[in-house]
Parts: sequence; C-alpha cells; structure tokens
Amino acid sequence: MDSFIPKHLQDEVKARVSRLALLLNNAGVEAMLVCDNVGLYYLSGRVFAGYILVGQDASARYFVRRPVGFSGVDYIRKPEQIAEIVGTVPSTLALQLDTLSVADYNRLSKAFAGASIVDASGMMRQLRSVKSQYEIELMRACGVKHVEAYSHIPEVYHPGMTDVDLQIEIERLLRKHGCLGLFRVHGQSMELFMANILCGANADNASPYDFAMGGAGQDLSLPVGADGTTIASGNAVMVDACGNFNGYMTDMTRTYAVGELPELALRAHRVSIEINRRIAQEGKAGVEAKRLYEISLEMAQQAGLDDYFMGHRQKAGFVGHGVGIEINEAPVLAPRSRDVLAVGNVIAVEPKFVIPGVGAVGIENTYVVTESGMECITLAPEAITPLD
Amino acid sequence: MDSFIPKHLQDEVKARVSRLALLLNNAGVEAMLVCDNVGLYYLSGRVFAGYILVGQDASARYFVRRPVGFSGVDYIRKPEQIAEIVGTVPSTLALQLDTLSVADYNRLSKAFAGASIVDASGMMRQLRSVKSQYEIELMRACGVKHVEAYSHIPEVYHPGMTDVDLQIEIERLLRKHGCLGLFRVHGQSMELFMANILCGANADNASPYDFAMGGAGQDLSLPVGADGTTIASGNAVMVDACGNFNGYMTDMTRTYAVGELPELALRAHRVSIEINRRIAQEGKAGVEAKRLYEISLEMAQQAGLDDYFMGHRQKAGFVGHGVGIEINEAPVLAPRSRDVLAVGNVIAVEPKFVIPGVGAVGIENTYVVTESGMECITLAPEAITPLD
Repeated sequence: MDSFIPKHLQDEVKARVSRLALLLNNAGVEAMLVCDNVGLYYLSGRVFAGYILVGQDASARYFVRRPVGFSGVDYIRKPEQIAEIVGTVPSTLALQLDTLSVADYNRLSKAFAGASIVDASGMMRQLRSVKSQYEIELMRACGVKHVEAYSHIPEVYHPGMTDVDLQIEIERLLRKHGCLGLFRVHGQSMELFMANILCGANADNASPYDFAMGGAGQDLSLPVGADGTTIASGNAVMVDACGNFNGYMTDMTRTYAVGELPELALRAHRVSIEINRRIAQEGKAGVEAKRLYEISLEMAQQAGLDDYFMGHRQKAGFVGHGVGIEINEAPVLAPRSRDVLAVGNVIAVEPKFVIPGVGAVGIENTYVVTESGMECITLAPEAITPLD
Repeated sequence: MDSFIPKHLQDEVKARVSRLALLLNNAGVEAMLVCDNVGLYYLSGRVFAGYILVGQDASARYFVRRPVGFSGVDYIRKPEQIAEIVGTVPSTLALQLDTLSVADYNRLSKAFAGASIVDASGMMRQLRSVKSQYEIELMRACGVKHVEAYSHIPEVYHPGMTDVDLQIEIERLLRKHGCLGLFRVHGQSMELFMANILCGANADNASPYDFAMGGAGQDLSLPVGADGTTIASGNAVMVDACGNFNGYMTDMTRTYAVGELPELALRAHRVSIEINRRIAQEGKAGVEAKRLYEISLEMAQQAGLDDYFMGHRQKAGFVGHGVGIEINEAPVLAPRSRDVLAVGNVIAVEPKFVIPGVGAVGIENTYVVTESGMECITLAPEAITPLD
C-alpha cells in the first residue's frame, strides 16, 4: 500500500508542518484546519478530498474522504467527525478565510463549536511564499522544460495563422514536454486557458482579469488573450504560456515577431530586458517589493514609455508577483505592496509594453530571491525571435 | 462604444433578471448582490470584475472595476462605493454563500451595514438549472461541435501511443473545432485539465475528485485521468472531454477500443446505452432526480454489473448532473437528491462501468428535459469505436 504522504516527501512535509506550527505559536493559535486543495497539496504532497489538522506541537492529522485505500489516515464522511475523532476542540482554530466559502465556514464553525476562529490567510500566504530547496528544485525543473518547449515555437508557426491557431500549437508543444496544463489561481480574479497569446491590435483590448496583459479572448465568457486575429507582418506576438510541469509553475513570457517591428516596439522590448536585469540585481532579501515596482516604473518613464507600460488603454497595477503552486502568490511587486523580499521567494517579473496596433512586447522571467539578488530560472533567449 | 450588455443579449438578460427578481419576491428579499464570475456572466452576458445589484423590481445595476470603456455602468474601485452610489442599503440582501469567501463576505456585510444577509445559493442554483431557449440553442451548438470533434478521434490515434499522447491530440482536435478549453466547476471538488481519458488498469485508480470516473493522473498535484499508460490491445479507452464552445458546455463521453474487448466490457457498454435510453424516456418534468439514479442502479444490478457500476475500487455517488455554464449544476441524479426535473433542465447522464485491467466503458449524453422525456443533444454514434 502506498503511503499517504509520498515517501520521498516525508521529511519535506514534516518541515512544512513545523514551519506552520511555528507561525501558529507566534500567533497564539492552537490549531489550523487546512481545507483547500492548494493547502492540502502543500502539506501532504497530494491533492485529496478532506482536511488536515495541524497543531502548535507540529502534529498533523489527515482526515480523508477520498481517495480510498490508504492506511495511517482517518477516513471520514463529513467534517463533523473530526472533532469527534480528535476528542477535543481547540480553543483557537485558524481557517483560511480568503478561500473558505461562507457556507463551509458556517458548517465548520458549528463542527468546532467553542473554538474561537482566527484568519490564517496571511499566515499561509507568508508560509508558501518562502520556498524550500525541494520546491526550488521543482521550479528549476519547470524552467528547463518551459524553455525547451518555447524553443520550438518558431517551428509551429505558419504564415496566415491566427493567434488562436498558434496558441493551439503552443499548447500542444507544452503538453508534449510534460506540461500538466492546469493553471492554479488564488481567488476568482483570473481565469485563463493555458496561455495568453497577444498580437496586433488585440493586445490593447482591456480584460476584466488581474493579469498583466489583456486581450479580448475568443468569447465574452472568457475575455482574455487571443481573439482569432490573423498574425500579420509587422505584428509582435507575445507568448505567456503555462509552465506547470509538476504542480509548481514557472512563469515566462517571450516575444516573437513577424516581419519588421517599428522602432518603438523594439526599444520597449529592450527596456523590458533592462528592467528585468535591474530588478534581478536590486531584488535581494530585505528589499521592499514596492521599491521594485517603483524602479520599473521609473525606468519606463525615463525611456519615455510610460504610456505603454503594463498596458495602454487599461493598465495593470503590478510588475511582478510570487509564483509557486499558484500563479499569484506573495510577494507582489506593486505600488502599495507591504511585502518584503525574503530568501526563497520565487518571483515572476513581467515589465511589458502594449504598442497599439503592433502587439505587446517585453519579457517575463521567474527568479529565486537570494541574499545578493535574484537568480533567473527561465533561461530562454530574451531578444525578440522572428517567426518568419 | 460597445454596449455593456451585448446587444443581442439584452432581452435575454432582462428575462433572466426578471426571473431572479421573482425568486427574490417569493423569498421576501429586497435585493441580491451578484459577485462571482458565473453569476456575473449569467446576468450580463460577459465576465467582468465587479458586481450586479438586482432588485425585487427587476432592476439591475452594474458596478464595474474592469474592463474600462463602457457607458451605462457605474465604475467603482471598491465595493464600499456601491451603497454610496445607490444611496440606500436594502433591508435584506441576498449573497451566494456557497461561492463567496468569508473574507469577501465580511467586507460586503460591512459595506452594506444594516442589511440582513440571506443565502442566495439555492436560488441561483434553481434559476440557472432551467435554461432558456437561447441557452438551449447555445448548448445544441456545443453538441454539434463536440460531436464533430469526436468524429476525428480515430484519425489521431497511433499504435503505441500513451493515454496522455492521445489526450493531447484530442485537446488539439477540440480546440481546432472552437473549444474554449476552460472547464468551469462549482466549488473546489473538481479540478481537471480539459479531458479525462481512461484506459487499462488506470481506470480503476481512485481519484479524490467528485467526477464519475477516476484515474491516477500524471502527477499527485492533479490526481485524475490519464497517467501515461501505453494503450494496449484489449484496452477500452474512455474519452470524456471538454465541450465548452461558447461559455456553455455539453458533456459527452464515448468509448473506443484497441483490439478485442472482453465480453464483460462489451456487455457493460450495451447496458450503459440501455440506461441512457431508459433515462431519456423516464426523465420528464416532474420526475424526481433520485428516481433516475435508482432506475440506473437497478438496471446495472439486473445485468449483474453492480460491482463495476460508477467505479469499482471507489464508486461515484451519482449517475448524472445538470450542466450549463458549469459542469456540476442542478439537478443531480443521486440517491439523496431532492431535485425534481423541470422543463429546460439540461442533464448529462453518464452510467459508466470500470472493468478492471480493461478500462472504463459506457457513454455519456447531454439531454434537454421536456414535458415528455429528454432530448439528446450529443448525437454521436454510441457503439464502441475501434481505434485500430
């Protein structure tokens, strides 16, 4: 019988549980009940239907509804059984109020009647923002596959293709390289199918979502990205496609071109690369995340490109974000961010420019924060790559 | 400037808002604040970042954060502005407590201080379960494309393929036929990348998710479906792939075979077709959803196939479900379901059998409920199709 915590992950899971227990101790909270798929995966190494009860003493008990067939866990049908099995109700119980629905909260707070409920959202966000060596190795492996898949993009381009046609071939390339396709997002502010491919005038179409870039999409039910535009000579084609190869993700954008791009687009692309370089130097442990946003904006302004920076008709309010199991983790590089960089943060930096009528240009890399700067783990060529 | 409510949808949206207002009146609730993407799309025809305030008088006001560029809506930065703009706070305010996070609830209940909050989850579930003629036409169109894409599946099979290889080609087929790829699910109990393809022994691997079938998946971070098994002679290959072509979905499963399948698998497949036929006859307006589950189970039992019905090592607890914008809508065909069929329900019926070592067999069709039975809108051949 397989062990519920995968064998190769038992020390890793123990370390994660211990780090969470430390945060519980610091907050004076007796226990946390982990309920969402991301938290369950993080604290067990597998997604399952159920709950994890983590105690201040770094104990972790796994209450499982499905899948069947494991020993060393408590099988339950409903959450009301947990307090019964444990035999006590903690005096204070942490729950992630940013992901838990009100309906589930009402049920759990009855099942743990007597416990005072505290919000664990910030705690989990902080915990998961600092990656272990094991997690960083998974993300490095993602970066290698992500880069390898992108290297074949020019091979799947054919003149006369639409942006959607190209996206379909890129999806297939990624999948053939082992991409799982799923794109996990915290909250409901981002929906996407596997990639955002932008070219021509569509790059300036505003989207409702919290992505750096927009695009009209193929349908009003999913208003982002490629919209069926035929890729024309003089178009920049920005490719920002899913890098989930093992439950963790790298986030990487590269820009391609058909024919000659105008000087404005070429210049903006160079500035994006320069911003990446500068952020990679400045982004060390202890630096305020908002400072990195300010540096990016200042560089765009000094280049006279602020009209195009992070969108044109509609602008995104950030230039980078943590990434890991989800695409929108901490820290966030934004003007009002209160995050401070720490060793082990993994951050996607995406200074992008929308050039009306041409497309979007710029690059996005994923970096690991160290004491002395940020190490890039998405090592694909950064120059604009011709497709024709 | 485009109208915020797409022009061709203005009467349709008005009718949906009126139906919701009727439910509000019946429940004695003054207003509802719609917050989630599915509700926003349903009541406006587009996904946007913001809120809709629907009143008992069938008024609907659209409060928009993004996208920019529309007239006739109220642009806001934060939900606290809504009560300010409206000038009053409703005495009772309905919110969907099954999708709203506790954090968002806390914020909204402060922004609408004085309003007594009631749960609108059931109301929205009921409202959306009865499709309009317009919605049914969208779903018919999905069915046509879904069927057309599936008809090419034998062409993309090559001997020696893994289930994942085949899935990648099916994903591409669907996308080339216009599939949007996104698979909207209510709640967090189902995660999937575009399709569940099951063959051989993997069909009997238990998954944590609420799907009819399981499969180990490619990675513990997404434990469902194809796991890289090489498709071998004697395998059944079950294909259940995303039918979202326009924001609405059809749900359709077909079974393929490589080489000869054992008689047990062939017989189970025939019983699945028979159950579909019977449910399509019995499923009329006024019939209890649980009765349709009972009929299905009885038929499986009478055929001596209950060991394999809806899973083998682990069983799913339902045989069908409503489908529309989300894959798991009302009514649910399950033993304890309290749903009663109504004209305009659209239901996927999926009596499936796991044959250990062989794969999964059976079919799934999507049906529209009428006064006299259910009309199938996924009209693909139902027999097992040879791949070789």
